Amino acid sequence: MDVVVGYNTYIELIRPLIDGKKIIATGMTQEVKRVETAIEQALGSKSCAIVSGGDPGVYAMAGLVFETCKIKNITITPPGCRFDHLKDEEILTVEIIPGIPALCAGASLLGAPLTHDFAAISLSDLLTRWEVIEERLEVAAKADFVIVLYNPKSKKRSWQLEQAQQIILKHRDKSTPVGIVARAMRQKQNVEIVPLEKLHEAAVDMQTTVFVGSSTSRRYRDFMFTPRGYAKKYRIKNDAIKK
Amino acid sequence: MDVVVGYNTYIELIRPLIDGKKIIATGMTQEVKRVETAIEQALGSKSCAIVSGGDPGVYAMAGLVFETCKIKNITITPPGCRFDHLKDEEILTVEIIPGIPALCAGASLLGAPLTHDFAAISLSDLLTRWEVIEERLEVAAKADFVIVLYNPKSKKRSWQLEQAQQIILKHRDKSTPVGIVARAMRQKQNVEIVPLEKLHEAAVDMQTTVFVGSSTSRRYRDFMFTPRGYAKKYRIKNDAIKK
Repeated sequence: MDVVVGYNTYIELIRPLIDGKKIIATGMTQEVKRVETAIEQALGSKSCAIVSGGDPGVYAMAGLVFETCKIKNITITPPGCRFDHLKDEEILTVEIIPGIPALCAGASLLGAPLTHDFAAISLSDLLTRWEVIEERLEVAAKADFVIVLYNPKSKKRSWQLEQAQQIILKHRDKSTPVGIVARAMRQKQNVEIVPLEKLHEAAVDMQTTVFVGSSTSRRYRDFMFTPRGYAKKYRIKNDAIKK
Repeated sequence: MDVVVGYNTYIELIRPLIDGKKIIATGMTQEVKRVETAIEQALGSKSCAIVSGGDPGVYAMAGLVFETCKIKNITITPPGCRFDHLKDEEILTVEIIPGIPALCAGASLLGAPLTHDFAAISLSDLLTRWEVIEERLEVAAKADFVIVLYNPKSKKRSWQLEQAQQIILKHRDKSTPVGIVARAMRQKQNVEIVPLEKLHEAAVDMQTTVFVGSSTSRRYRDFMFTPRGYAKKYRIKNDAIKK
C-alpha cells in the first residue's frame, strides 16, 4: 500500500502500522473529499487504502466509494478481474476488507444480545429524514427485533435517543434490558446494562452503540442475551452439571 | 486454552491451530450437548473454548451459553471480575471474542450493501414460528431496510426463501439488486447479484447469505451498494478526477 487516507482519529489509532507511507488525514464531515482524494491517488497508479473504524461496510466509508465511482463513471472491478480491452490505468480495482463492526464488538462485551433477528438503525438525521427513522424504529419495535442504535446522540443531536426510547416503549416492556457500549475495545471503554425506562438517563455519546433487547432478551448477572429458542425446544435441565 | 469444543466443520477449519489440545467435536443439532460439555469442562477447572463460524454472537452459540448458565444458575462474570466471597471453582468467567460475521464478510464481497439501516432475519422456522418471521419480513420490507437473510434454505426447508421473496416484492421494485454470497472467504466461495424477481432461481443453500437491497441500493458493474445520502447533500460532481 502506497497511500493511506482516513479520518484523523482512525489514522492515529494505526499510525505505528503505517510508518513510511504517504498519509492523508482529514477531519469530520470531510467524507466526500476523503473519498475523492483516495480515488485520485489510486487512479494516479498508486495503491491507496481508506481506513474506517469497525467494519468499513457498516455505516462507514465503503458505500461512498462506490457511489462516487458510479457518479464519475469510473470502471471498477473486484480484485483478480481484468477487462482485456481496457488499459490498466482506466480500471480501478476495489477491495473491501471486512472488519469487526461496533455491533459485534459491543455485543461481545454485553454477552449475546444478537443471537436472534435484529435491526440496525442510525439515529442521525443529518442525511436521512427523521420520519423515515421514526417509522423504522416503530416497525422494528412492533415486530420484536433486537434494535441496535448507531449514532444515538451527539452534541448537536440531543433529543433523538429519548424519542426513540418513547417509540420503543409503546411496544416493549419498560424493564427490557438495554446494553450501552461506549468505545468498545478502545481506551475509555464503558459497558452498562439498564432497563429501557431508564435509557434517557444513561451516558451516551457519538462513540456509543445502544442495544435494545427484544421481548425475549434477558439480563443475567452482568450480561444480557437473546435466546434463540433451544431451551424451549430441547429442554435444558436445571440440574447441576457434574464437575 | 486446555479444551476446544465445536461443530465438526469448524473444528476442521482450525485444526492446525489447536494441535495438542483436548478437542471435542460434535455434529449438527448437538448445540445443547456441546454447550453443556463445554461448561462441564470449564467448571472442572480447565479453560475451554467453544468455536463458532463467523461471529459467535450473531445467530451463533454465544446466546446458548448464557441461556444454559442462567437455567442451571451458574455464577458467571466477565473477565477481570471476582466475587470475594465465592471460591474460584464456583465462578465461571465467560468471554465472548467477536469475529467477522457472515453479514460483513458477504457484504464486503458484494461491495457495500450495508452502509445504511438493515435488518437481519433468519428464515429458519425450526426454533421460530413462521408467522413471526413473516411479520418481520413484511415490516422490514415496508420500512425500506436492507434485509440480510440468514439460513435461507436447506434440504428440508425449501419454500421459505420464495415466500420471503414474494413478501418483499409487495413493497420493493422487482429490479432491486439482491446479493447472494455462499461460503464467504472459504473454499468454493460464490458471489452473485440478481434482480429481486429472479431470486427464486438462484443457487442458495444453508451456507449462503442473501442481501436484499433497499429502494436506494444500486448495482454498479460487479458491485452493489446502498448510498448513505452524501451525494444528495454534498453534490458529488460527475467531472473526471485529475490523475
